[in-house]
Amino acid sequence: MCRFTLYLGPPVRLSTLVTEPEHSLIRQSYQAEERSEPLNGDGFGIGWYSPRLWSEPALFHQITPAWSNRSLQSIAKVVASPCIMAHVRAATPGSDVNLANCHPFGYGGYLLMHNGHVGGFRRIRRRLLESLSDEAFNVPRGSTDTEHLFAVFVDELLRGGCPVDPGASVEADGQGALELARRLSASITRVLALVEELGDGESSFLNVAVADGSRVAVCRFDTDPEEQPESLYLFHGEMYEPAGRRFLERRQDDDGEAMVVSSERLTGDPRWMAVPPNSMLVLDRHAAPRVLPMDDLGRLVDA
Amino acid sequence: MCRFTLYLGPPVRLSTLVTEPEHSLIRQSYQAEERSEPLNGDGFGIGWYSPRLWSEPALFHQITPAWSNRSLQSIAKVVASPCIMAHVRAATPGSDVNLANCHPFGYGGYLLMHNGHVGGFRRIRRRLLESLSDEAFNVPRGSTDTEHLFAVFVDELLRGGCPVDPGASVEADGQGALELARRLSASITRVLALVEELGDGESSFLNVAVADGSRVAVCRFDTDPEEQPESLYLFHGEMYEPAGRRFLERRQDDDGEAMVVSSERLTGDPRWMAVPPNSMLVLDRHAAPRVLPMDDLGRLVDA
Amino acid sequence: MCRFTLYLGPPVRLSTLVTEPEHSLIRQSYQAEERSEPLNGDGFGIGWYSPRLWSEPALFHQITPAWSNRSLQSIAKVVASPCIMAHVRAATPGSDVNLANCHPFGYGGYLLMHNGHVGGFRRIRRRLLESLSDEAFNVPRGSTDTEHLFAVFVDELLRGGCPVDPGASVEADGQGALELARRLSASITRVLALVEELGDGESSFLNVAVADGSRVAVCRFDTDPEEQPESLYLFHGEMYEPAGRRFLERRQDDDGEAMVVSSERLTGDPRWMAVPPNSMLVLDRHAAPRVLPMDDLGRLVDA
Amino acid sequence: MCRFTLYLGPPVRLSTLVTEPEHSLIRQSYQAEERSEPLNGDGFGIGWYSPRLWSEPALFHQITPAWSNRSLQSIAKVVASPCIMAHVRAATPGSDVNLANCHPFGYGGYLLMHNGHVGGFRRIRRRLLESLSDEAFNVPRGSTDTEHLFAVFVDELLRGGCPVDPGASVEADGQGALELARRLSASITRVLALVEELGDGESSFLNVAVADGSRVAVCRFDTDPEEQPESLYLFHGEMYEPAGRRFLERRQDDDGEAMVVSSERLTGDPRWMAVPPNSMLVLDRHAAPRVLPMDDLGRLVDA
Repeated sequence: MCRFTLYLGPPVRLSTLVTEPEHSLIRQSYQAEERSEPLNGDGFGIGWYSPRLWSEPALFHQITPAWSNRSLQSIAKVVASPCIMAHVRAATPGSDVNLANCHPFGYGGYLLMHNGHVGGFRRIRRRLLESLSDEAFNVPRGSTDTEHLFAVFVDELLRGGCPVDPGASVEADGQGALELARRLSASITRVLALVEELGDGESSFLNVAVADGSRVAVCRFDTDPEEQPESLYLFHGEMYEPAGRRFLERRQDDDGEAMVVSSERLTGDPRWMAVPPNSMLVLDRHAAPRVLPMDDLGRLVDA
Repeated sequence: MCRFTLYLGPPVRLSTLVTEPEHSLIRQSYQAEERSEPLNGDGFGIGWYSPRLWSEPALFHQITPAWSNRSLQSIAKVVASPCIMAHVRAATPGSDVNLANCHPFGYGGYLLMHNGHVGGFRRIRRRLLESLSDEAFNVPRGSTDTEHLFAVFVDELLRGGCPVDPGASVEADGQGALELARRLSASITRVLALVEELGDGESSFLNVAVADGSRVAVCRFDTDPEEQPESLYLFHGEMYEPAGRRFLERRQDDDGEAMVVSSERLTGDPRWMAVPPNSMLVLDRHAAPRVLPMDDLGRLVDA
Repeated sequence: MCRFTLYLGPPVRLSTLVTEPEHSLIRQSYQAEERSEPLNGDGFGIGWYSPRLWSEPALFHQITPAWSNRSLQSIAKVVASPCIMAHVRAATPGSDVNLANCHPFGYGGYLLMHNGHVGGFRRIRRRLLESLSDEAFNVPRGSTDTEHLFAVFVDELLRGGCPVDPGASVEADGQGALELARRLSASITRVLALVEELGDGESSFLNVAVADGSRVAVCRFDTDPEEQPESLYLFHGEMYEPAGRRFLERRQDDDGEAMVVSSERLTGDPRWMAVPPNSMLVLDRHAAPRVLPMDDLGRLVDA
Repeated sequence: MCRFTLYLGPPVRLSTLVTEPEHSLIRQSYQAEERSEPLNGDGFGIGWYSPRLWSEPALFHQITPAWSNRSLQSIAKVVASPCIMAHVRAATPGSDVNLANCHPFGYGGYLLMHNGHVGGFRRIRRRLLESLSDEAFNVPRGSTDTEHLFAVFVDELLRGGCPVDPGASVEADGQGALELARRLSASITRVLALVEELGDGESSFLNVAVADGSRVAVCRFDTDPEEQPESLYLFHGEMYEPAGRRFLERRQDDDGEAMVVSSERLTGDPRWMAVPPNSMLVLDRHAAPRVLPMDDLGRLVDA
């Protein structure tokens, strides 16, 4: 299953997600509370953007558990970013623990990560791959359902003429985050159509986040009418400072509110809100968060 | 803390400890039941003897969790041995997860592994090292309390004129297993004297096993009169076959009973017995197991 | 490119290939002599059969270099086998170093490893996968050309009604090794046809070995008329003992000669012979080695 | 032996040392040119300071070779720093490849890395440790000669009342870099006195660098009158931009020249100068580099 957390806002150190909060992502790697299995020890990954330095995000992947990784703890204290994605993995049985299977997955300026699984993935994999352009066909380098969903997302970007060149993608425009959300939704709908046709009736759980450095779309979704999707929370406020300290000097252009989305609440702050089931969060650095409902097929309603 | 299991008897495949039983050591790596923290994911190690091939044991150490290691699962099915030690680690806070800290530790023909901790270890470490011969002083290559206890054990072997040359150590003699037990007891007593003198009152938990290929000594011990030692069980029977299958053709000299000692019972078989608190098991391939009481200072009573 | 070595004959310890010879496979991992780049440090793998214990081979893969792996050195001394495959990898640029990309690759009772590359692999990959049965389509878990060639080999086995069940595959029959060779040749021919149709003119270098525990086929082959294939040597003699020691007691059924095939000669013994370019070695435990010529398309001549 | 490179100056991305130059540190990890063995594949480490974010440096250590580490390549592009230390390791025989043995070593706000070895280290190790304060005694967590030298350096800092608190150490003062150099020199002199007393006549090679975030001391030194020390070069100029690009916007306080010290020249730029044998470079962000001669005992002359 996995746990993840992401940040969008004025630059913060990675440690404000990964190590400092009382229920940090590292804590969730061994003591997750909102799923039956508390353990997410099959490697981790963290991606972050430093738009003033480079157009592509950094990706730090490891197959060892997050809780014992001294490099992660050290780097997290010293690196700050306005857009961060961090993930601890619980491999589904039969899925290997290796570097190619660590989230987030990256392509150009985009990142994607996932908590959940695609129902009956093995049955749809071949048809899913057949549906892709040659460029997207070569995206998967490992064996996870998530990376194959990511290939569909890349396919959607390329079909839509989206600028996958990282330099372009971080140019802000009014439709940006909504466009990301539409591409993610379309990807999910394509995958679910295959599951419906070829699957074995197993439900899909799709808490999925995508980012391009200044915009994020993230959904909380499942196809089982009798089950809740995996947990997902949004924090939204003027300042996100879990340890009550203010380390970073702000630059003039570092305004805007802080947004954190996390599988489990990182702190006891009452401002954390549950994301509604089967809905999509649309986040932009300089706008209020929007919540869009999704229908049974993963399509955005009212968008 | 950690979990461990060991085997002495007619050759069995490693998988009969590590993967096949319903509560195998791999299961204990993520779902231990007899300690409050179920997780032992900070690397693992397995040592085994193949006396017909080589006098030193094989040592396979990894810093990744046991549960996801495909090489471990594969090797365990294909390798058989009459004497096996297997360990999954839960590093104490501040102790690194790295190869030098994986159990079992080896020296010549001997192996040692441990579940527990030495109370106030950081306070006694310098004096412990000072007490060692030059040869034993160079034994520790990592930073665990266990490896320092092992250095004391090697020191005891060398002081006592024990044959540390592996070829010699596997020669059976009547006193062998008892002699191993005496050396282990003497090592514990030396360490506890330092803890008493320099420690901060923290208790020591010392479930420790040593082997030389045909003999094993293993104790269940702590210094806290108000706490039970960590759990430890003994299985002893004509045949140990957790999955009810008989894979191995026996050779004529493969008689003798099977003995398994494990932090938690590997199976539901009613023959598993709890090892009494503060006592030492003395195991020899061709004799019945003996249990010797230990006093508060770790000394063998009646031996 | 990579280096590999394999053994078929009376059981020997793994170390007789991996560590003991003066030009052991570990030495070839950092000081290969018959290719311009001496370094093969992108992980390693060793597979071996223990037919008396289990029908599938053991597979030990690591992404760290062979030369520094203490577990490899330790295990190699203590494990013996009648059929061994060992490989040190030099990843082609752009190909990841991760566990899923380590050789040898295994399926049921079969192993395959490779030194070389498929010319223009990225261009043929999609069509290669399309040509596979569903079962073979799911064989690749990583991104190497070799694992895709292995999927074609599995496809050939399944098409030909070969017993991929490991228990069956190790039953000896007169045609066994030749049948393995035919399947390997057919796989190569299929891949080369795609290279011819879709490639960019880049040559293919295919030193490939397959085994089922009692039989081996291994070819030395390339498609460039102006280049020699990668080096490959055969040792064949009554006894293979690189260090001049005889460790293993023979059982009565351990007769037959020792056969070693290696990218570079492991020792200075004058009995090492170069395998002729574009030919296939056919090895059976209880028969003399045969050499079959291959034509430009990878087909066996006179077989 | 190893190769290393360090940077002090206006912030640059890590990639300007590690990946971009034609003879980058990653290239030196497999194709070093100024030592007989081109291979430095036994893990790597990179430490960097971000004084605006945190007072301690980040430390990223891995036991896999630098050349295949995708996280290193990704992070290097996206992270910038005014003070960087990067190291690729070639373990001396018998010294383990594990995380505790990766350079640079860190303590508070200080980093140290080393290319070379302490002659007869195993003979002096016990006495070296005996000479340390309790705090410095607990510095080594691994088994390298370098980490033991680092413990002596920490001992010197503590004896001298140096502020080891990272917040304090980065406060600039006029004597800072020279004081660092004196401490390093004193540490070397202490170690060499033990080598002289207890060693076996083997020479010591000590190219050693220390940093505190705004100051660096680095020496090129050996004790063998008939051998040159390991190679070491200094680049010093207004701007260090190996790829001819200017990525980083400068802040007003980012003045000062760029200083790079490297085991091998990273580029063909004619401004690289060989550091004189047996001398110490003293580098300060806002002053010209100084070169101080060292005598046979490692003492600074004229300082």
